[in-house]
Amino acid sequence: MTALNQDYGTSLSWIAVDWGTSNLRVWAMDDKANILGSAESPLGMNAIAGDPKLSFEAVLLGLIDGWLPEGVMGLPVMICGMAGAKQGWLEAPYCDVPARPSDLAQGAVKPNVNDPRISVFILPGLCQRGDSDVMRGEETQLVGFMAGHPDFSGWVCLPGTHSKWARIAGGEITAFRTYMSGEVFALLSNNSILKHSVDDTWDDAAFADAVRAARTQPTAFLHSLFGVRAGALVAPAGTSVPPGASVLSGTVIGTEIADVLGLLEPGENIALIGAGKLASLYQAALAVHHHKAALQDGAAITLAGLSQAYGTLISASKEN
Amino acid sequence: MTALNQDYGTSLSWIAVDWGTSNLRVWAMDDKANILGSAESPLGMNAIAGDPKLSFEAVLLGLIDGWLPEGVMGLPVMICGMAGAKQGWLEAPYCDVPARPSDLAQGAVKPNVNDPRISVFILPGLCQRGDSDVMRGEETQLVGFMAGHPDFSGWVCLPGTHSKWARIAGGEITAFRTYMSGEVFALLSNNSILKHSVDDTWDDAAFADAVRAARTQPTAFLHSLFGVRAGALVAPAGTSVPPGASVLSGTVIGTEIADVLGLLEPGENIALIGAGKLASLYQAALAVHHHKAALQDGAAITLAGLSQAYGTLISASKEN
Repeated sequence: MTALNQDYGTSLSWIAVDWGTSNLRVWAMDDKANILGSAESPLGMNAIAGDPKLSFEAVLLGLIDGWLPEGVMGLPVMICGMAGAKQGWLEAPYCDVPARPSDLAQGAVKPNVNDPRISVFILPGLCQRGDSDVMRGEETQLVGFMAGHPDFSGWVCLPGTHSKWARIAGGEITAFRTYMSGEVFALLSNNSILKHSVDDTWDDAAFADAVRAARTQPTAFLHSLFGVRAGALVAPAGTSVPPGASVLSGTVIGTEIADVLGLLEPGENIALIGAGKLASLYQAALAVHHHKAALQDGAAITLAGLSQAYGTLISASKEN
Repeated sequence: MTALNQDYGTSLSWIAVDWGTSNLRVWAMDDKANILGSAESPLGMNAIAGDPKLSFEAVLLGLIDGWLPEGVMGLPVMICGMAGAKQGWLEAPYCDVPARPSDLAQGAVKPNVNDPRISVFILPGLCQRGDSDVMRGEETQLVGFMAGHPDFSGWVCLPGTHSKWARIAGGEITAFRTYMSGEVFALLSNNSILKHSVDDTWDDAAFADAVRAARTQPTAFLHSLFGVRAGALVAPAGTSVPPGASVLSGTVIGTEIADVLGLLEPGENIALIGAGKLASLYQAALAVHHHKAALQDGAAITLAGLSQAYGTLISASKEN
């Protein structure tokens, strides 16, 4: 746990919080959306929900107490993520799609707090009926992305254990789809018969081939998986076999992308939010199908989304 | 381990053996393909390969020794399954598709045996290059099915942890596809986030709905999985939610079947080999799409396939 014991005085306008399942990040913000300082902690929702000695308010204050200037009252704290889940601080009921950023800001809930120095807003997640789906936290990244790309029309991808794809048009989030690709890849490479075919060896061309094959046979996922193993068994002795990790990863990510590309309408674009190896794999897989997607930094986008909510809820109310 | 200590005298013509990964079944056969007796053991390939004190010949003789009449020499023993794998008794190299039953019989290998009373034939598995795939054991069930349905044209399904679908036409096995559906279902219901949504509750209509939805969105598997969880989260309070096990099972089996139905050509039929709950689920899923598939008993079909191989290799050679 890190915390800056720095009093930002009257420069401090509000506090931004991304409260995930397994970690917590906070930022001290001025009124121009500049970052004054930041801190993080492993006390995500699961740790707090599992320990009766912990409370969300106490954990938050443990990180930001030193930031608060003397005499401050009701400093706005904007929170996104699992703090608004049923097992969180206070449930923030999901907003239905289609949703505008302002709908999300206005869906924020205010938990009772004991410390009068802060005023807490927890932003809601998004839900979709019909083709059932939910998200909590990613919607704020989408809002941040939309703030920087007001004319974007198309699909925004947030790779992860459960990757999210959201369709954005006319300043609204109109639909979204969660894919269990990351979790399925981990289960298959660690716990299935395919674990014997997966090691640290990697080959970009084998990954690209598997991505291409997944789009040629987009309904064959459960069969293509077995090919990761069978490919090695049928290869003539002495020939080299493509590394299983590359083939499996290309099959999983490629199947996900093939499904989304099937929904893409003419003129729609694709954007990627994320960093690191996983986001680069999505970028490479999209490039196989001739889609250029620039990577957007996830933390910056989250902060932009929280700033947007702060602007809607607080700046606006000050002006009135 | 069970064994019948019964001397069948000169009625005993040959011995049929199905040697799997984790079990072993043997049958005493007369020359009219009647079963005189049977025995089984948990000493499948894995147990023997993992224990240097065990040998395939000794394990086999432990089951059949009491069946062998005095003075017998070179009694044919026809084996299918994992005894022919690389880690088995003696590797029987895969036959390539397209393959006729006689190709498989003629691909049998003969391990050296110390006991002169038996003469051992191990049948090969099948492999497919291009769309890489392999099977060992199921090919003998396919041969048994073809013996009883010489004019069948279409796809034969063998449900299992790794289900197999084989295309049969003109007395040949022309192609096949393995689906990792059973293993994927087990991993998702026991080890993924979906375990919280899966219990012993079952609903046939929810299963059928999921099978139907899988064919409507055959490329959406990795997304549809998350719907098993999201469906419960977005349901209005007080409404009943379809049991997760039924939805997950219908999604997995339905996605497999949607892929196969996409390959089905006009006039082709579907047959199912198997028994028990899993085979019934496949039958129900096929019925959702108006395909009637009668269930064929797996053990009887294996024996018919081994009899066919015996006929090709032994009866034929006696006639010459």
